[in-house]
Amino acid sequence: VLTVLCGGVGAARLLAGLVDVVDPGSITAVVNVADDTVLHGLHVSPDLDTVTYTLAGVHNDATGWGVADESWRVMDELEALGGPTWFRLGDRDLATHLYRTGRLAAGAPLSAVTAELAAARGVAVTVVPVSDDPVRTVVVAATGEHLAFQEYFVARRCDVEVAALHFDGADAARPAPGVIEAIDDAARVIVAPSNPLVSIDPILAVPGVREAVARRRDAVAAVSPIVAGAALTGPAARLLPDLGHDPSALGVARHYQGLAGTIVIDAQDAPLRDAVEALGMRCVVTDTVMADRDRAARLAKVVADG
Amino acid sequence: VLTVLCGGVGAARLLAGLVDVVDPGSITAVVNVADDTVLHGLHVSPDLDTVTYTLAGVHNDATGWGVADESWRVMDELEALGGPTWFRLGDRDLATHLYRTGRLAAGAPLSAVTAELAAARGVAVTVVPVSDDPVRTVVVAATGEHLAFQEYFVARRCDVEVAALHFDGADAARPAPGVIEAIDDAARVIVAPSNPLVSIDPILAVPGVREAVARRRDAVAAVSPIVAGAALTGPAARLLPDLGHDPSALGVARHYQGLAGTIVIDAQDAPLRDAVEALGMRCVVTDTVMADRDRAARLAKVVADG
Repeated sequence: VLTVLCGGVGAARLLAGLVDVVDPGSITAVVNVADDTVLHGLHVSPDLDTVTYTLAGVHNDATGWGVADESWRVMDELEALGGPTWFRLGDRDLATHLYRTGRLAAGAPLSAVTAELAAARGVAVTVVPVSDDPVRTVVVAATGEHLAFQEYFVARRCDVEVAALHFDGADAARPAPGVIEAIDDAARVIVAPSNPLVSIDPILAVPGVREAVARRRDAVAAVSPIVAGAALTGPAARLLPDLGHDPSALGVARHYQGLAGTIVIDAQDAPLRDAVEALGMRCVVTDTVMADRDRAARLAKVVADG
Repeated sequence: VLTVLCGGVGAARLLAGLVDVVDPGSITAVVNVADDTVLHGLHVSPDLDTVTYTLAGVHNDATGWGVADESWRVMDELEALGGPTWFRLGDRDLATHLYRTGRLAAGAPLSAVTAELAAARGVAVTVVPVSDDPVRTVVVAATGEHLAFQEYFVARRCDVEVAALHFDGADAARPAPGVIEAIDDAARVIVAPSNPLVSIDPILAVPGVREAVARRRDAVAAVSPIVAGAALTGPAARLLPDLGHDPSALGVARHYQGLAGTIVIDAQDAPLRDAVEALGMRCVVTDTVMADRDRAARLAKVVADG
């Protein structure tokens, strides 16, 4: 049994590699919900959808988000009406949000809806939101301005100096059914190469999750999303120094020091091995850039085997 | 200044005729909202949309609802996901619901959102929901079952014996800004050929509206939606007898007796003229079947001229 703490694209790629090397039914993906947002009254869960779409093989590889073979009839019409279209929701993608919003309105918890959507798409991995309760990342800009995550990420394209991050609702959130058990019972717990600050930290911020992961430290392997000082996707390389962290695989290792017994870093960062090991962590050096599915599977095998 | 009390298709056709014979800017359409529903978290206003789409010339004449040049990408995907698709929302139509729901969530009243949508589509008629507050038709079946209107109308195709109609929320609803003034100030108030029981009655049920219309009785002309004992669209011919009314233009006249000084009936119903006049109403006999826009304009001229 493998449990993977997941943000969006990096996690989805690692999961796609994992299902090629281990039984998909033995994998649980515990997914960040702090990027979730309500648009036009619809509940949008970007990380859950990226993971589910990728595992279903319907993800849009060109954009890194949304569904392949997508069309934009609704957005085009909304634009003609003068409505807000800064967050582009494709027609096929919208069906997911309609389904989710309708089920949530009927009283179903997000975890149940997520399982239904995964099953409808034939996904054998157990995909579970870290919590059924709302946890929302608030980005506090250096100017003092508070931004909802998608406002920061999509509307402002992360072009903001960040002073702090808050995870609204985290204190009162409870782990979704099965989350703690999936961490407790896993042969390995994998921290996906997702943004440590805005994808993994809000998972850990749900009371009980950080403690559960720390208890399994020897079985926890974190994959650095930072390679040669850069993030492959997203704003991590900018956020890390803004928030006082070293924007390097070593900085990531330090961030996970109390939680992960092992850190997996890219071959380009091999010179950091000694410094990482000096933190008391095993350091696995391998090719972590998942440029294609074969390379994702190779990384997945390294990570799954420990 | 003309004010028209409106349901869906019949009202929309009459309005389309009216704008051909009088200045659209002098017309106010006061529209039923008791058919409104929330689907997938989206606020759908069928009568407001039918009126607006028709006046914008983008209505779907083939179906009688929705937008022309429509596509079904979202519904097709939602169906593949196993989601509820009994209420078909086309892609272009969905943009309206996304716009409306987003604006309502931002705190805008329905009347403001309706005006924005009408302006975006170049509609010069003032389109106003009878109320910004929720009024919802509940259909009480003879079996005792309570059905939301769209459940009755779309899911059950009106194939239900009806014991009673309730307009939930009506008692607490306030007329939307301008509604009472539009009735008070109009040279003529027209009751569109809409279903008296489920389109017009819920308009009149908003406190103050029935009284305002009754005060203007001499200036009120109602167009019978029943022609030769049948309704051109919708369930009126079945609902009227279920609820103890005569399913004829005479039954409609009786229903509006205290509100309308004039009733407009179809030439096919000319033999009813004496019976209608015996109710103390003027009876105008003309061709009321708006099979095309020219005939709609001819009827509109008769109605507008009184």
